[in-house]
Amino acid sequence: MPRVLGIDIGGTKLALALGGPDGRLEARMRRPMEPTGEARLDLARIVEDARRLVAEAGLVLEEVDVVGVSAPGPLDPARGLVLGPPNLPGWERAAVAETLETALGRPVFLENDANAAALAEWRFGAGAGLSNLVYLTMSTGVGGGIILGGRLYRGVASSAGEVGHAPVEVPGEPCACGLSGCLEAYVGGAAWTRRLRSKAPDSSRMLELAGGRGAITPVHAIAAAREADAFALAEMVRFNEYLARAIVSLAFTLAPQAVILGTIACAAGEELCLAPVRDLVRARTWPVFADDLRIVGAALGERTADYAGICAGLEALQSGA
Amino acid sequence: MPRVLGIDIGGTKLALALGGPDGRLEARMRRPMEPTGEARLDLARIVEDARRLVAEAGLVLEEVDVVGVSAPGPLDPARGLVLGPPNLPGWERAAVAETLETALGRPVFLENDANAAALAEWRFGAGAGLSNLVYLTMSTGVGGGIILGGRLYRGVASSAGEVGHAPVEVPGEPCACGLSGCLEAYVGGAAWTRRLRSKAPDSSRMLELAGGRGAITPVHAIAAAREADAFALAEMVRFNEYLARAIVSLAFTLAPQAVILGTIACAAGEELCLAPVRDLVRARTWPVFADDLRIVGAALGERTADYAGICAGLEALQSGA
Repeated sequence: MPRVLGIDIGGTKLALALGGPDGRLEARMRRPMEPTGEARLDLARIVEDARRLVAEAGLVLEEVDVVGVSAPGPLDPARGLVLGPPNLPGWERAAVAETLETALGRPVFLENDANAAALAEWRFGAGAGLSNLVYLTMSTGVGGGIILGGRLYRGVASSAGEVGHAPVEVPGEPCACGLSGCLEAYVGGAAWTRRLRSKAPDSSRMLELAGGRGAITPVHAIAAAREADAFALAEMVRFNEYLARAIVSLAFTLAPQAVILGTIACAAGEELCLAPVRDLVRARTWPVFADDLRIVGAALGERTADYAGICAGLEALQSGA
Repeated sequence: MPRVLGIDIGGTKLALALGGPDGRLEARMRRPMEPTGEARLDLARIVEDARRLVAEAGLVLEEVDVVGVSAPGPLDPARGLVLGPPNLPGWERAAVAETLETALGRPVFLENDANAAALAEWRFGAGAGLSNLVYLTMSTGVGGGIILGGRLYRGVASSAGEVGHAPVEVPGEPCACGLSGCLEAYVGGAAWTRRLRSKAPDSSRMLELAGGRGAITPVHAIAAAREADAFALAEMVRFNEYLARAIVSLAFTLAPQAVILGTIACAAGEELCLAPVRDLVRARTWPVFADDLRIVGAALGERTADYAGICAGLEALQSGA
């Protein structure tokens, strides 16, 4: 059984784990990411962490078959380059795979975090046992990853799965990506936060829960909706409407077995989000699509960080890369 | 090299052809479909045609490796059933594959016409040499077929690729499928024809070209637009707008190498349709998607009928069915 060292690089957190296709973790560690502004220095510290983790597991690096790295996009998986995500200053065209390969002496494969998380949910989470699914991150932004035929589907320039920027309204709200009407402009955490702060009536329970207008986040919208706050409930209806539109398009196009929804949809849960979205999708697709489509929350939660890098490595092994 | 007998069953036309993966046709025949209202009788006549074609090519049936059948959906390719397309009366749950297999003594594989045409464009048409593409039929309705990784992508219940029913407007125009806002409700030939007949001003050149309001079809809208008729030009703008919306969603989701557009888009051509759609898509996607995406008309035209069945058979052979 192959052993993979998984490295999950986030803007704020770093996670390392050792494991394989059975999902058992031999070792894991986490720390704040604390970017220095220079990829070289950040990567040198990650190399130290990796060596320490392998040693603590009683192993030597030669016993690691492959290193899988999950990192924020945009990135070029074929060349192993991170192309300069906004939350990793100094990582413009960082040669992550080559640097780690040289330092660790093992093959390194890089994958964007949404794809890596999709692979993790497919192998070890809500998509286990399925072969065709779409995963949406639903955090600050809306990333996506598509598994088809039991393999990550990449598309041209490995850029497939950007479902967060498919239009759900034309003309639509401006999106951080520069376009408008994107799904992310409606259900992305950053966009929704801005809207909640500007539109919440003074009487909304959200202001109390957040301790002030400027502190409101989607967490407070969800909590206030649970308490039947009228504005928050209306916001959930809007959130679900746009999310359902995107899922309807995915259903007609890909007929997937599952659409797995990440952070915000998971936080909102069955009653406020998943059940109403299922009803909307059923009403707007044909039975052949809705009958066999699971619309579910991601199952791994915080554990995604343990598995994302490992799954990126396993996918590279499986594809014979 | 495998030899395939391809049978393309349409509501109005039947086409048979003998060929293989090099695209050369050893024999072909066509005739009006003339459905009797009973699948058994229609299929018996097709069997006679098939026997005659093989004999005329100087072959015996044993020299045919596989029979590929393209037929209108809905159908169940796994069971070889046609499920009752509106334009084939008496074909409800017709056991097409089994009937033909028994009569011809060769393995028979059934594929819906949009998928079979997508395979034909991929092997022998505008998608030759590519591995990831989406094909849209764009005739009376808007069917679709998706090739990913050089294979037909089927999805749950072989129902993927129904891009014609992904929503492009919410709330939207009612669609023949019972939903609303579907791409087909805007750019499908039947829907567009109804709209043109009801909305064309009496002064539009379309009425003259068609010889009366009730005879207007998309052909006349295209011809009138070529003559700079204001209403027809506005209709083309609308057509292109909705088509572009669907392609933008496909680009962000699948990052295909090509979107290949069928009948109506081909008839409208570069100036009235393809070039403006490319501009709209470029303006509404990211460069990574638009730079490598070919938006082109289908190349086979009438020859699709010769290749659709053959390609359905080749796909079955390739998938080891």
